[in-house]
Amino acid sequence: MTDAMTAPDVSALDAADPLAHFRARFQLREGLIYLDGNSLGALPMATGERLAGVVGEEWGEGLITSWLGAEWSTAPRRIGDKIARLIGANAGEIVATDSTSVNIFKALTAALSLRRERTVILSEATNFPTDVYMMQGIEAFSGGRVKARTVAPDDIVDALGDDVAVLLLTQVHYKSGRVRDMVAITRSAHDAGALVVWDLSHSAGAIPVDLNGANADFAVGCGYKFLNGGPGAPAYLFAAARHHAATPILSGWFGHARPFDFEEDYDPAAGIARFQCGTPPVLGLAALEVGVDLMLEADMAEVRRKSLALGDLFIELMQPLCDTYGFVLASPRDHAERGSQVAYAHPQGYQIVQALKEYDVIADFRTPDIIRFGLTPLYLRYRDMVETVERLERVCATRAWDKPHYYQRAAVT
Amino acid sequence: MTDAMTAPDVSALDAADPLAHFRARFQLREGLIYLDGNSLGALPMATGERLAGVVGEEWGEGLITSWLGAEWSTAPRRIGDKIARLIGANAGEIVATDSTSVNIFKALTAALSLRRERTVILSEATNFPTDVYMMQGIEAFSGGRVKARTVAPDDIVDALGDDVAVLLLTQVHYKSGRVRDMVAITRSAHDAGALVVWDLSHSAGAIPVDLNGANADFAVGCGYKFLNGGPGAPAYLFAAARHHAATPILSGWFGHARPFDFEEDYDPAAGIARFQCGTPPVLGLAALEVGVDLMLEADMAEVRRKSLALGDLFIELMQPLCDTYGFVLASPRDHAERGSQVAYAHPQGYQIVQALKEYDVIADFRTPDIIRFGLTPLYLRYRDMVETVERLERVCATRAWDKPHYYQRAAVT
Repeated sequence: MTDAMTAPDVSALDAADPLAHFRARFQLREGLIYLDGNSLGALPMATGERLAGVVGEEWGEGLITSWLGAEWSTAPRRIGDKIARLIGANAGEIVATDSTSVNIFKALTAALSLRRERTVILSEATNFPTDVYMMQGIEAFSGGRVKARTVAPDDIVDALGDDVAVLLLTQVHYKSGRVRDMVAITRSAHDAGALVVWDLSHSAGAIPVDLNGANADFAVGCGYKFLNGGPGAPAYLFAAARHHAATPILSGWFGHARPFDFEEDYDPAAGIARFQCGTPPVLGLAALEVGVDLMLEADMAEVRRKSLALGDLFIELMQPLCDTYGFVLASPRDHAERGSQVAYAHPQGYQIVQALKEYDVIADFRTPDIIRFGLTPLYLRYRDMVETVERLERVCATRAWDKPHYYQRAAVT
Repeated sequence: MTDAMTAPDVSALDAADPLAHFRARFQLREGLIYLDGNSLGALPMATGERLAGVVGEEWGEGLITSWLGAEWSTAPRRIGDKIARLIGANAGEIVATDSTSVNIFKALTAALSLRRERTVILSEATNFPTDVYMMQGIEAFSGGRVKARTVAPDDIVDALGDDVAVLLLTQVHYKSGRVRDMVAITRSAHDAGALVVWDLSHSAGAIPVDLNGANADFAVGCGYKFLNGGPGAPAYLFAAARHHAATPILSGWFGHARPFDFEEDYDPAAGIARFQCGTPPVLGLAALEVGVDLMLEADMAEVRRKSLALGDLFIELMQPLCDTYGFVLASPRDHAERGSQVAYAHPQGYQIVQALKEYDVIADFRTPDIIRFGLTPLYLRYRDMVETVERLERVCATRAWDKPHYYQRAAVT
């Protein structure tokens, strides 16, 4: 807003916010407005102490006995059961381990093992890159047997031909925040004889998800975004109970029925345990569990309501900047179609994100011109929306991004 | 030894030990004799503080900016370069990330991509199970194109037929501690037109390894044994520079040439970076780096010398127990063939390992009857060898293992 405008008073909204108390559960420097929790979630206050205990007591004192004594060996399933409560799965349908990319590979190859007569892995061309890259790796290895096929986002359902074994789709798009209709698309895929792997990286902890309500087959997701599990946190994999006879090709010893019998042949464990591969990443799992436990304290309906209200306010406040400085809303306005982020396109998007950092606002940039503002209802306030737009207006009014060093793209942004 | 025997005085050996000062760098409770560092290495004293910094400062304060600011994004290669110094590789030939199992998969599929006209992955039947299981997963997925073949340990070289694409072998056997001749076997494999993937899980930090001296192709290894990286630590993968055009099929975004350009097609990074897959596990990597840094302070020739001296002493002290109680040495006596552990077979092996815990000795058991005593020269003393045998003698003399609860096998030991 320009100097002549008056920022709206949102103090009543913050005062009435039933989730307001969660902010104190995170380490967040006063003054900083962190709008990148959809890339790396903030640090829960409890994480440091928990990790210190896992390191000093469980590892340092318990040593090898902690695999049983501190329940390290069952952590992937225990945390999976907790994540299940966030996304409409049952206990015994999720494991937390490995990266999202590796879990995509497991889920896709498991789905292929259930549709051996079909050859195509389908996705949208603008899906998050690692999803498509993993498909392309499978194609390359298959010697021509499997095809990785991508189509335009709106052509997905039409592309569900009788050669499609599995559809890989991200529910909430990483750039636009557009939400896919999980129920309808899953039904369309099943009608066409295909299975679906849902990538929930921008969904879990951000919007209500009901995997079993949608009759979902497989899903994967990231632990370090809205679940606040820490940098490079273990990801998770969901396999509906009816698909537990599928065999992911990453047949490591922790997926074996009797890993500590050291048998010579792979015999996959019953249930979700077969979707594990190597030794569980204990330190990362400990941090992830803190984040998941914290998210479980919140009512997901309240989280969704606040997320949409923050987004509506932000979009409203941004309208003058769209008119004056050329920002173009790149996220759906419609609640049913909008995830927990609001994105704008701007030709100087990269430089604006850099300039905003000097005003203590962290957003992020995605090529070619998208500025993402991630909305994390557990630790953002309505006043943060107001102040973000105020600071952005100052960046624009002074063309603060016109510094040469903002034009040096770093390798990682 | 029996009461009538006198324990040898090894205090002079401990006093003269040039590695003795390293023990204080680890958290180890007085009285405990920890002979399972080949399963889970002990906790370095520096790890807790390092992790607290990564969590509280890098994650908590730096948030998303720490991917560059705290060099998270390059940690897999930075730590890989450090591990390289331990095992005779060059900078730029190793990444630290993912589990050993997942890295086995990458290395095997990369090797297969370099030998497309061949079909067989060869290993020994008694290899560590996850190695063979990963081979079997590849076979299952290949639709008959790739065969996982295992042969008896001594038949490996003879089995290098012209259909063998890649040999997967563990240099130091997980049960016996037998050391394979890396130079000779690699040469035999190359003569037969095959590549070799060496599993160094029980080698790195335990015995001197010279990957490039042996003209090795690929290698993988575990971060949580002799490298003291913590439970479920990230593993590592070595690819000789001449093989960096190979393509592992786990083509995740962190292996892309320009991950943050979010391109639609996979274009593998030049060099070792393409052997990364998903987002690096930052917390696990931080702990691993502390362990690797500590190991780099030690002279590997001294480590080896002490390891063999500890083993020789232990074997000598155990001889009376072999004669009286039926222990059978299951490791080579010959220095050239013995890694950093000494194993004994005993029909009550499992129960003896359980009973030893009550005497504050932690060893471990491997089916069907193997007791492993892991020798970690950085934190074990000569007197620990003497005391272990004394305590084991008391266990045997009183048949302390004859308690019913020792016969209830736990799921994880």
